[in-house]
Amino acid sequence: MTLFIEKLESSWKSQQSLLCVGLDPDISKLPASIKENDNPLLEFNRRIIDATADYVCSYKPQIAYYSAIGAESQLEQTIQYIKTHYPHLPVILDAKRGDIGATAKMYAIEAFERYDADAVTVNPYMGGDTLQPYLNYKDRGVIVLCRTSNPGSGDLQELESQGKSISHHVAHRAATQWNNNKNVALVVGATYPEEIGTIRGIVGDIPLLIPGIGAQGGDIEAVLKNGLTVTGSGLMINVSRAVINASDQSDFAEAAGTEARKLSETINSLRKAV
Amino acid sequence: MTLFIEKLESSWKSQQSLLCVGLDPDISKLPASIKENDNPLLEFNRRIIDATADYVCSYKPQIAYYSAIGAESQLEQTIQYIKTHYPHLPVILDAKRGDIGATAKMYAIEAFERYDADAVTVNPYMGGDTLQPYLNYKDRGVIVLCRTSNPGSGDLQELESQGKSISHHVAHRAATQWNNNKNVALVVGATYPEEIGTIRGIVGDIPLLIPGIGAQGGDIEAVLKNGLTVTGSGLMINVSRAVINASDQSDFAEAAGTEARKLSETINSLRKAV
Repeated sequence: MTLFIEKLESSWKSQQSLLCVGLDPDISKLPASIKENDNPLLEFNRRIIDATADYVCSYKPQIAYYSAIGAESQLEQTIQYIKTHYPHLPVILDAKRGDIGATAKMYAIEAFERYDADAVTVNPYMGGDTLQPYLNYKDRGVIVLCRTSNPGSGDLQELESQGKSISHHVAHRAATQWNNNKNVALVVGATYPEEIGTIRGIVGDIPLLIPGIGAQGGDIEAVLKNGLTVTGSGLMINVSRAVINASDQSDFAEAAGTEARKLSETINSLRKAV
Repeated sequence: MTLFIEKLESSWKSQQSLLCVGLDPDISKLPASIKENDNPLLEFNRRIIDATADYVCSYKPQIAYYSAIGAESQLEQTIQYIKTHYPHLPVILDAKRGDIGATAKMYAIEAFERYDADAVTVNPYMGGDTLQPYLNYKDRGVIVLCRTSNPGSGDLQELESQGKSISHHVAHRAATQWNNNKNVALVVGATYPEEIGTIRGIVGDIPLLIPGIGAQGGDIEAVLKNGLTVTGSGLMINVSRAVINASDQSDFAEAAGTEARKLSETINSLRKAV
């Protein structure tokens, strides 16, 4: 049994990349040639994956882009495609699920058995007991929302209680209560780099998934300065639209590959400097 | 255009019921005769719906029970069945979604266009801006998690900040910022009845969806005492397992109907007393 953390660490090393590419194919933005395909999201993803696989440490499909249009089977096949052709690359199902025990068990089955994802994102608002059904899958990763990248993320996450913010409460619980199976990671947005540093300080070398680079405007250098572990790793820096929508023409895959390579190289050169 | 709140108020009145039945069919618990059906969840639901429709104000399918086994089309057909045969009964899609703007839009399309639900449950952890894509559907309801029914719900929801708990912050924002289209409701668990009272005080007559009766052990009388609006309404009291799994034999639908009738009558007699 390979643990998620082992698969991720091995990928960070062999791929020499901290870049995670988000497979969030908005059907309205796909190139015309792809839209005609029977399985347009799958076909789009396959070509994006083949073009970017050398430059990433992981992939992160966002389930809403599939479920909005009833394309769950294309999501299943996308993940299967990665597992068949790039079995060394972990797949994170971005679903941000959260519900009570009996229902959470069903969501865990959805993520880890139906889709066979290596990790899933979850929402901590309902409390620690609601995370347990995912955590029980020892070989899978559970990536808990901590500080998100959107403008309103502070509405609840920045409220202070007992001397620390709600997102820091989440980080503390992740480090001290939820990580018994060494399968927890956290989401911290690139748009709040100082928070990445504080949270890194709280959680030690727990992996951080960092959205918010690219379309959302986060700063890679600030992310690395604040988020790298002592061994110069520990981050999955996610980029979705800036890679997969780099071109909306028939050269979209090539453009995505170029963009992913550039991003990975930028991250690596800044990583050395930092 | 009928608004969700109008549909719900009209249902409360014409049905004389505050009972919401949760359509959470666990495939492993279905009667043997139903399991053999090509569409077991749909068939089960149809018979439960026909047996309980006289006693409910609304139905609430929980999406995880469908997505865990790749049965989205049976969920679509279940909702369509209610809309065709019982068009006066609102359907709440229990999905507890939460994500940033672009993705939240996709989730809103999933809930309101693909499934055509009258309302959807959402998670507020990521902040007010992430709720906007749902709120923009003026005729649909947006039911925000406030204080949930599970044992660990206090982990974050009970933390105090600026003189009030996180769940009360959610209630305040719901009442003062998110309800411009009069389409917000809140989830408050029956297992914390005193919280129902406090939150009712904060939000006025905003509808409350109350899980936690039945299998989870909440007390109906305490819920009513604390949660009824001044007009003696304003609640959807959800029961799932205690109704739909009342019998695991071929009499399951009859048993569910009996249980739903009893629950609705109990609620109504206590409602008069309170």
